[in-house]
Amino acid sequence: MVDVVALGEPLIQFNSFTLGPLRFVNYFEKHIAGSELNFCIAVIRNHLSCGLIARVGNDEFGRNIIEYSRSQGVDVSQIKIDDSFTGIYFVQRGYPIPLKSELIYYRKGSAGSKLSPEDVNEDYVRTAKLVHSTGITLAISESAKDAVFKAFELAKMRSFDTNIRPKLWTPEKARETILKLLGKYDIEVLITDPDDTKILLGITDPDEAYRKYKELGVKTLLYKLGAKGAVVFKDNLKAFKEAYKVPVEDPTGAGDAMAGTFISLYLQGKDLEYALHHGIVASTLVVMVRGDNEMTPTTEDAERFLKEF
Amino acid sequence: MVDVVALGEPLIQFNSFTLGPLRFVNYFEKHIAGSELNFCIAVIRNHLSCGLIARVGNDEFGRNIIEYSRSQGVDVSQIKIDDSFTGIYFVQRGYPIPLKSELIYYRKGSAGSKLSPEDVNEDYVRTAKLVHSTGITLAISESAKDAVFKAFELAKMRSFDTNIRPKLWTPEKARETILKLLGKYDIEVLITDPDDTKILLGITDPDEAYRKYKELGVKTLLYKLGAKGAVVFKDNLKAFKEAYKVPVEDPTGAGDAMAGTFISLYLQGKDLEYALHHGIVASTLVVMVRGDNEMTPTTEDAERFLKEF
Amino acid sequence: MVDVVALGEPLIQFNSFTLGPLRFVNYFEKHIAGSELNFCIAVIRNHLSCGLIARVGNDEFGRNIIEYSRSQGVDVSQIKIDDSFTGIYFVQRGYPIPLKSELIYYRKGSAGSKLSPEDVNEDYVRTAKLVHSTGITLAISESAKDAVFKAFELAKMRSFDTNIRPKLWTPEKARETILKLLGKYDIEVLITDPDDTKILLGITDPDEAYRKYKELGVKTLLYKLGAKGAVVFKDNLKAFKEAYKVPVEDPTGAGDAMAGTFISLYLQGKDLEYALHHGIVASTLVVMVRGDNEMTPTTEDAERFLKEF
Amino acid sequence: MVDVVALGEPLIQFNSFTLGPLRFVNYFEKHIAGSELNFCIAVIRNHLSCGLIARVGNDEFGRNIIEYSRSQGVDVSQIKIDDSFTGIYFVQRGYPIPLKSELIYYRKGSAGSKLSPEDVNEDYVRTAKLVHSTGITLAISESAKDAVFKAFELAKMRSFDTNIRPKLWTPEKARETILKLLGKYDIEVLITDPDDTKILLGITDPDEAYRKYKELGVKTLLYKLGAKGAVVFKDNLKAFKEAYKVPVEDPTGAGDAMAGTFISLYLQGKDLEYALHHGIVASTLVVMVRGDNEMTPTTEDAERFLKEF
Amino acid sequence: MVDVVALGEPLIQFNSFTLGPLRFVNYFEKHIAGSELNFCIAVIRNHLSCGLIARVGNDEFGRNIIEYSRSQGVDVSQIKIDDSFTGIYFVQRGYPIPLKSELIYYRKGSAGSKLSPEDVNEDYVRTAKLVHSTGITLAISESAKDAVFKAFELAKMRSFDTNIRPKLWTPEKARETILKLLGKYDIEVLITDPDDTKILLGITDPDEAYRKYKELGVKTLLYKLGAKGAVVFKDNLKAFKEAYKVPVEDPTGAGDAMAGTFISLYLQGKDLEYALHHGIVASTLVVMVRGDNEMTPTTEDAERFLKEF
Amino acid sequence: MVDVVALGEPLIQFNSFTLGPLRFVNYFEKHIAGSELNFCIAVIRNHLSCGLIARVGNDEFGRNIIEYSRSQGVDVSQIKIDDSFTGIYFVQRGYPIPLKSELIYYRKGSAGSKLSPEDVNEDYVRTAKLVHSTGITLAISESAKDAVFKAFELAKMRSFDTNIRPKLWTPEKARETILKLLGKYDIEVLITDPDDTKILLGITDPDEAYRKYKELGVKTLLYKLGAKGAVVFKDNLKAFKEAYKVPVEDPTGAGDAMAGTFISLYLQGKDLEYALHHGIVASTLVVMVRGDNEMTPTTEDAERFLKEF
Repeated sequence: MVDVVALGEPLIQFNSFTLGPLRFVNYFEKHIAGSELNFCIAVIRNHLSCGLIARVGNDEFGRNIIEYSRSQGVDVSQIKIDDSFTGIYFVQRGYPIPLKSELIYYRKGSAGSKLSPEDVNEDYVRTAKLVHSTGITLAISESAKDAVFKAFELAKMRSFDTNIRPKLWTPEKARETILKLLGKYDIEVLITDPDDTKILLGITDPDEAYRKYKELGVKTLLYKLGAKGAVVFKDNLKAFKEAYKVPVEDPTGAGDAMAGTFISLYLQGKDLEYALHHGIVASTLVVMVRGDNEMTPTTEDAERFLKEF
Repeated sequence: MVDVVALGEPLIQFNSFTLGPLRFVNYFEKHIAGSELNFCIAVIRNHLSCGLIARVGNDEFGRNIIEYSRSQGVDVSQIKIDDSFTGIYFVQRGYPIPLKSELIYYRKGSAGSKLSPEDVNEDYVRTAKLVHSTGITLAISESAKDAVFKAFELAKMRSFDTNIRPKLWTPEKARETILKLLGKYDIEVLITDPDDTKILLGITDPDEAYRKYKELGVKTLLYKLGAKGAVVFKDNLKAFKEAYKVPVEDPTGAGDAMAGTFISLYLQGKDLEYALHHGIVASTLVVMVRGDNEMTPTTEDAERFLKEF
Repeated sequence: MVDVVALGEPLIQFNSFTLGPLRFVNYFEKHIAGSELNFCIAVIRNHLSCGLIARVGNDEFGRNIIEYSRSQGVDVSQIKIDDSFTGIYFVQRGYPIPLKSELIYYRKGSAGSKLSPEDVNEDYVRTAKLVHSTGITLAISESAKDAVFKAFELAKMRSFDTNIRPKLWTPEKARETILKLLGKYDIEVLITDPDDTKILLGITDPDEAYRKYKELGVKTLLYKLGAKGAVVFKDNLKAFKEAYKVPVEDPTGAGDAMAGTFISLYLQGKDLEYALHHGIVASTLVVMVRGDNEMTPTTEDAERFLKEF
Repeated sequence: MVDVVALGEPLIQFNSFTLGPLRFVNYFEKHIAGSELNFCIAVIRNHLSCGLIARVGNDEFGRNIIEYSRSQGVDVSQIKIDDSFTGIYFVQRGYPIPLKSELIYYRKGSAGSKLSPEDVNEDYVRTAKLVHSTGITLAISESAKDAVFKAFELAKMRSFDTNIRPKLWTPEKARETILKLLGKYDIEVLITDPDDTKILLGITDPDEAYRKYKELGVKTLLYKLGAKGAVVFKDNLKAFKEAYKVPVEDPTGAGDAMAGTFISLYLQGKDLEYALHHGIVASTLVVMVRGDNEMTPTTEDAERFLKEF
Repeated sequence: MVDVVALGEPLIQFNSFTLGPLRFVNYFEKHIAGSELNFCIAVIRNHLSCGLIARVGNDEFGRNIIEYSRSQGVDVSQIKIDDSFTGIYFVQRGYPIPLKSELIYYRKGSAGSKLSPEDVNEDYVRTAKLVHSTGITLAISESAKDAVFKAFELAKMRSFDTNIRPKLWTPEKARETILKLLGKYDIEVLITDPDDTKILLGITDPDEAYRKYKELGVKTLLYKLGAKGAVVFKDNLKAFKEAYKVPVEDPTGAGDAMAGTFISLYLQGKDLEYALHHGIVASTLVVMVRGDNEMTPTTEDAERFLKEF
Repeated sequence: MVDVVALGEPLIQFNSFTLGPLRFVNYFEKHIAGSELNFCIAVIRNHLSCGLIARVGNDEFGRNIIEYSRSQGVDVSQIKIDDSFTGIYFVQRGYPIPLKSELIYYRKGSAGSKLSPEDVNEDYVRTAKLVHSTGITLAISESAKDAVFKAFELAKMRSFDTNIRPKLWTPEKARETILKLLGKYDIEVLITDPDDTKILLGITDPDEAYRKYKELGVKTLLYKLGAKGAVVFKDNLKAFKEAYKVPVEDPTGAGDAMAGTFISLYLQGKDLEYALHHGIVASTLVVMVRGDNEMTPTTEDAERFLKEF
C-alpha cells in the first residue's frame, strides 16, 4: 500500500552525448525516464511512498526500468511484463532551438502502451491518498486511457498533468479526451501550462485559466510558466515563484519533477508557497543535466538550495 | 546505372560501449548498418559500383543513412523517403555467449519494411550486372518480399544470402519463402551456412548442400563456416579457406562483408580462391570492431593483409 | 525472510578505464561490488532470495550501494547506515601482471568494517536455509569477525569462501582465524583454492585438501583452480570442469560469481556437476568485463552458454 | 554544374574534448572543417548546390574530407588528390581567453595549399551563379592565390570573406593581396569585420567601411560584429541584427555559416533582412558546439528558430 | 633553494564526469590537486620558483602527485614518501547547489596528514622569500599543524590562507588554532573571505576585517568575495576587482590560484592592483574546468586575458 | 651529468580510440612518445639516469613533451625550444593488418628535426656512460644526423637501434647512412631485427647477422624477432627468450622499451639473460596498451612479472 499511485509508461531515454542534429551524434547516454516515473521519484524524494502501474517488455530494457525504479524506492509490484517491446526515445538537444530538446519516440505499440484497466488493482488504488496520471498516458492507447479513467474512478484524490505531446495525438483529440476526464472527475491538483491551456480552453492567462479550471472541479492549479517560473492557485490563494537562471543541459523532465515534488509536499500539508518553491528548485536542478530524475532533490537538499543558492 | 543493385533495409545500429547485458550499458555508439548496405559497401571497396533500393524515414536517422551511404560511394538515387520511422537496433555483446552478439530490433513497421515493388525501377535493375538481396528482406514485410521477387525477375544475374533471422520469421515461413525464391530464379551465387541450410534442406554437410542447391539452380555456393572459415563451390571446383584468429569485438556484419567482397571480385572475373580469400579477410577485419562495414578492406588492403598478416 | 544470508562489506569499485599503472589512468568507471554482495547477486540470478547483513556510510556511495543492491533484488533490510565513510577501492588492470588486477583499498575504518554482532538479527539468520561469509569479513575488523561467528552459530547451514587477501591480514592471522571458524562450525560448502589452502593447511593438492577439510567438518568442497577450472568434492563424488578461454578484462569477482551460483543451485538440489558447470560459466563471463556482478548469468542464460558456446 | 563554387582548403579539425591548454587535454574529437567547406555546407542547407575546388592528400584524412563533403551534398568532382599530406588543425578552447578558441595549424606545405590555377575547371566556374573564396586561400600559397584570381576572372558573380588569419600571413601582405583582389574584381558580397577592416582600410566604423568598400566595387557588405551581431549594407539599404545569447562551446566556423547562409538566400532573391537573420541564426547555432558545420541549419530549421527561440 | 615554500597535503581528485549526486555518476576524471600544490603552481606560472613540503603514500597515487608536481616545475625535493595511503577526494558538482561543488574526502590518516616538524628542512625554509600554508594543513593533524608553526617560526615572510573546511574541524577549533597562529607570527599576506572571517572574528565587512587583521599583524589582506570579486588592502591602499562572468564548471581551486598568483606577483614588487587583477583572472579561468590548477595562467597569458576578454 | 644520453625527436602521439581506418575514428587519445624518449624512460625505470638531447616547438605540444619527460625523471636540461612546430603523429590500429599499427607523421620540418651538432653539449655527452640514438634520428634531417655523429664521436660507449622507417627515407639511403655510422664507431650494443638487417646486410639469419655486425665493431647484438621473442649475442654467449602471448592493443614503442630496459641493466652489469628477459617483459607490457612508455616496468615490477605470469 503506497501513498501515491501513478499510471504511465516508463521509457528508456537515449540522450545525445553532444548537442545538435542526431545524425552527427556518435554516442548516446542511457537514462530511465517517463513522465509518471519521474513524478514518482520526486514524490519519494520528498518522503512519501509511490507505486507505478505500468507495463514493460520482457527484455533488457524492461528489466532495466524495473531495476532502476526499484533502486529509487518506487513500488514496482504493479509493473507487469508484457510481450511487446519496451518503449524508448532519443533526445536531440539544442537543435534547431538552443536549450530545447526534441524527442524521437519508438513507443508505438510498446509494452507500456498496452497498459489497460485490468492492470489497475482496485485495492491498491483505493488505499492510496492520491492517484496521478498525465495526458501522455491518455494519448498512448485506448486501453491506457481506460486504465486512467478506471483508476480515477477508484481514487480518493487525483492529480493530473496535461502534458500534451503533439507527436502522440492531435490537439482536437487531446482537448476532447482531457476535458472529458476533467468533466468526469474532480481533480485535487491540475498541472498545466499556457500552451496546453490554449489547446484545452483557448486561453493562456493564468488567472482566467484558474477560474475556468476551477469550474471544471479543479481544486488546486499548478501553472508552469517555463523559464519564467510557476504560479499556483488554491481557493483565494495565489503564489508565484520566479525560475532560477542556471545553465540548461536538457529541460526534459523538469515539469515532472516540479509536479511530483509539489504534490508530495502538498499531501503532507505544507503550505502552497513552500511546495511551490520546492517544485521550482526541483525543476531547476533537473534542467541542468541529461536524465530526467537523477537531480530531483530531497526535501532537505531543496532546503539547502533555497538557503545557499 | 550501377554494376550491382541490392535491395534491403538500412538501419541505425546502437552498439554497446561496454560488454554485457544491455541494462548495465550506459553508453551506446552509433553506426550505420543493415545487411544489404554492408554488402554494397563491400562491393564498392572492391571497385564496382553499387546502388541500394530501400526506404528510410523522414527523420535524422533516415538522413544519417543516406548521408553515410553516399559518403561511402553507394548510389542512393533509389532510396525513398517514407513517412514511417527509420528502423534501428541495439547490439548486446558478449552476453550470454562470449564473442557473440544479440540484436534487439526496433524495425517492425519501419520505413525500411515499406519497401515495395513500386520502388523497383526497372531500368535501374535491368542494366545492372547483378541483383542481390537476403532472407532479411524477404522476412520484413510482404511488400519487401514482393520487391525482391520483382527485382529478381528483372535481373540479369542474382545473388542471395539466406540470412535467416529467427526474430523476424519462423523457420517454416523462412524455408517456404526462400525455397520458393530459389525455385523460381537461378541464383548465380548463393551465400549461406549450415544453420540456415539445416532449416532449408534439413542437412548441413557442405558437399551435400552444394549438390542440393545446384539442383535448385544455384551456380556458385559460398558456404560460411563461422569461426572455421568458408568453402566455395562452382562446377567441379571447390575451395576452402580457414578463418584467421583475431580478437573478436562484434561478429555482426562479417558475413555481409564476405559476401559483398566475394561477389564484387567474382563479377570481375577473379578466380574462386582469390575471391574467397578476400572474402575471408573482409570478415576477419569486420569482427574486430563495433560497426559492420567500416573495416571492410579495399582489394589492395586485403592483398596487404594476405601478404603481411 | 530470505533463502540465503550473507555477511560482508559492500564496496564502491573504481575500475581503470585504461590498462596500466594507476598514475597513467585518467578515467575511472564506477561499479558496485564486494565479495558477499557479488555472491548474493549470483544466488539471486539463480532464483533463490538473498539478503545482505552489512553497514554502509551515510553518504552518496552508501546510498549507491543500497540502491544498486535493491535494484538487483538483494534484500537490503539488514543493511545499516553507519557514521563512518563507505569503503571504496580502485582496480589497476594488467600491470605489472597481464590479465591480472591489483586492488587499492580505502576501507580501513570504513562503515562496512563496523559490522558487528548487534547487526545480526537472530530471526533473520535462523530462518535462512544457509548463511555465507568469507575470509575478507573475518579480516576487516574484530567486530565483523564476531558477527560472522554469531551468524554461523545461529545458522542452519553454512558456506564459507576463504578469500585470503594479503593486504588485509597476515597469513598467520588468516590461518588462525579461519581454522578456528572451521573448527567450531560444520561448513556445508567450503570455497577455496590452492593458494589459500597452502596458507591454511600447508598443502595444495585437491584430493589431499578435501581429505583434510572433510576432517574439519566440511561437507562439500569447491576448489577453484584459476584459469584451469575448478573441482568439487562431496562424499565420494568428485567433478572437474575446465575453464573456458575468453578474453580477460578483469578477473575480480569471478570467484564470488562461481560461489554464489554453485551454492544457489546446490541448495536447489541440482547435482554437483550441473552446479559446478554453471559456476564455471558465471566466472567465465565475469572476467570478460570490468564490474564484478553485472555479467553473472541467470540459470537460463548459463544453460544457453553451455549449449551454444 | 553547381549554383555556387568555392575555392579553399578543407581540413581535419581535432577539437579539445576538455577546455584549457592543449597539454592538459587527453582526448580530441575529430571534425571536418575549413572555411570554404563550411561555407559550402551552409549554401547547401539553404537549398542551392555547391562545389568545392580543392586538393586533399592521398591518405585517410583526405578520404575523410571527400567522404564527409559528399555526405553533406557538396559536389566533390573538383577535389583533386595531391601527393602532399592533408592539412589539419587543433582547437584549444577557453584558454587563455574564455569562450574563444586558438587554432594550431599543421597545414604548411599541405595538399590543400597546392591548390593551383590548373585545378580551376573553366566551364565549372563559368556556369556557376557565384564563386566564393576567402583571405585564407589567398594566404596559404602563391598557387592557391592564383587559383582564386583565375576563378574570379571567370566568375559571373563573386563573394569574398576577408578572414585574415595572423598565423598565415602578415597584416601588410594581407592588405596588399586582398586590396589587389578587390581592386581587380567587383565583389557582389563582401564578408568582413572591424578587425580585418582595420587592417585593410585603417578604419572600423561600419558605415564608413561600407562607403570605402563600395568605392572598391563591393555591391553588398556583410559586416560581422562578433557577439554583437551583424549589419548588412546594399545600395541604400542597411539592416542590423543583434546576436543571440547562447552558451558558447567553440566560435570557430560561425562566420562561415553566416556567410554561406546569407549568400545562399541572397542568390535566391530573399530580402536582405531575411538573409541576415538566417545568417545570424546559423552562426548562433554553430558556436554552441565543437565542429564548424554540423549545426548549420536548413532554411526551415532556421525559421523554426526565429519563431520559437 | 626556492623563492616560495608551501606546506600542505597534495591529493588526488576524482571529479565527476557528469553533474549531480555521486551515486548517478558513472565516470570520474582524475586530477592532481590540494590547496598548497595549487598555490605552488600559480606561483610558478608567474615565474617564481616554489617547493612543496609534504608527504605522499608509497603507491601509484603518491607517485602520480610527485610526477605531476615535478612536471609543473614544483620543487619536489621535500616531498617524503610515507607508509600511509595517499589522500584522495571526490568532487560532486552542481548538486544540491548549482555551480557549487561538494568534496568527499578520503584523507583521514593519510600520508599527507603525517606531515610533521621533522619534515621541515631549516635551511630550505630559511632561505625562501616566503613560506605559505593554509587552514587545511592546520586541521589535518597535530603534527601537520606543528610543521606549519615550525616553518612559520623560521620564515622570512609568511602568507596564510584561512581556508576553513567544516568537514575537517569545528569552527571553534579552527578559530582557536588560526588565531593562535596569527597571534604568534606576523603575516605578510592573509588570504581569507567573509565566511571564514565570520568564524574567526565574528564579522564580515571587508574594511572592518582589515582593521582587525591588521591589529593581529597582518600586513596585506586579500579578501575574496566569491562570485563578486575580491578586495585587497595594504597600508592605506585598497583595491577592488569585480569577478568576470563565465560558465562555471567547478569552483574548486579558484581561491588557491588567486592566492598563488597574487603572492607571486606581490613578491616581484608588482603593484596591488596588478597582482589583484591577475589573481582574479586566475580564479576566473580555474572555475571554468574540472581540475584545480591546469587553467592557472602565466603572467603573459593573464595579460592577454585582461586585454582581450 | 647523467648515466645515459639519448638523441632524438620526442613527439606527440594521437592514438585512435577505436580500431580501424582513421577516417572512421572520432576520438583520439594523446600520449607522449618518440623512440629515444621511450628508450630514456625505460633506462630510468631500471634505475639509471638519462637525459634527452632534442628540440621541441615553442607551443603547447612542446611544453607537453618537456613536462611529461620531466615528470618521468628524464633530464630535460638539454631540450631546446625551437621556432618550428612540434612533431606529431597519428596511430591507426588494426587496419589493414590486425594487431599492427600504421603511423601517420606530421614531423617534416618540425622542431625536433632541427636537432643539430650545436645542441650536443660536449661535457654532457663525454661524462655519460653511454650515448644512444636510432635510425630515425639519422633520417629526419642532415643536421640531426650530424648531431648523432658528433655525439658518437664524443661518447665513451654507444648503443644504436637501426629502426629503419620506410616513411622517412629510402632503403638505399638508410643502408648507406647506418653502415657509415657503424663503420666509423664501435657500437657497444646494436639493436636491430631481420627486416632492417635485410636492408643493411642483405641477410636475416641471427647468427650470420651477428658475425657480420661483429666485424663492423658491434660488441653486443640485441636481435628482435617480433612476436617470436628476441635473441642476444655477446662474445661467445647467445641467449634467446620467447615472447609472451598477450592481447595486443598497439605494438608501437615495444622495441624501444626492450632496448632501454636491456641497456640499463646491461650497463649495471646484469648478465645477458637477465637483461634480455627484462627487455622481453617490457615489450610485452607495452604492446598491451595505447601509449609507448607508460607500461614500461621498473626492474622490480618486471621481476614480479617473471615470477607470477
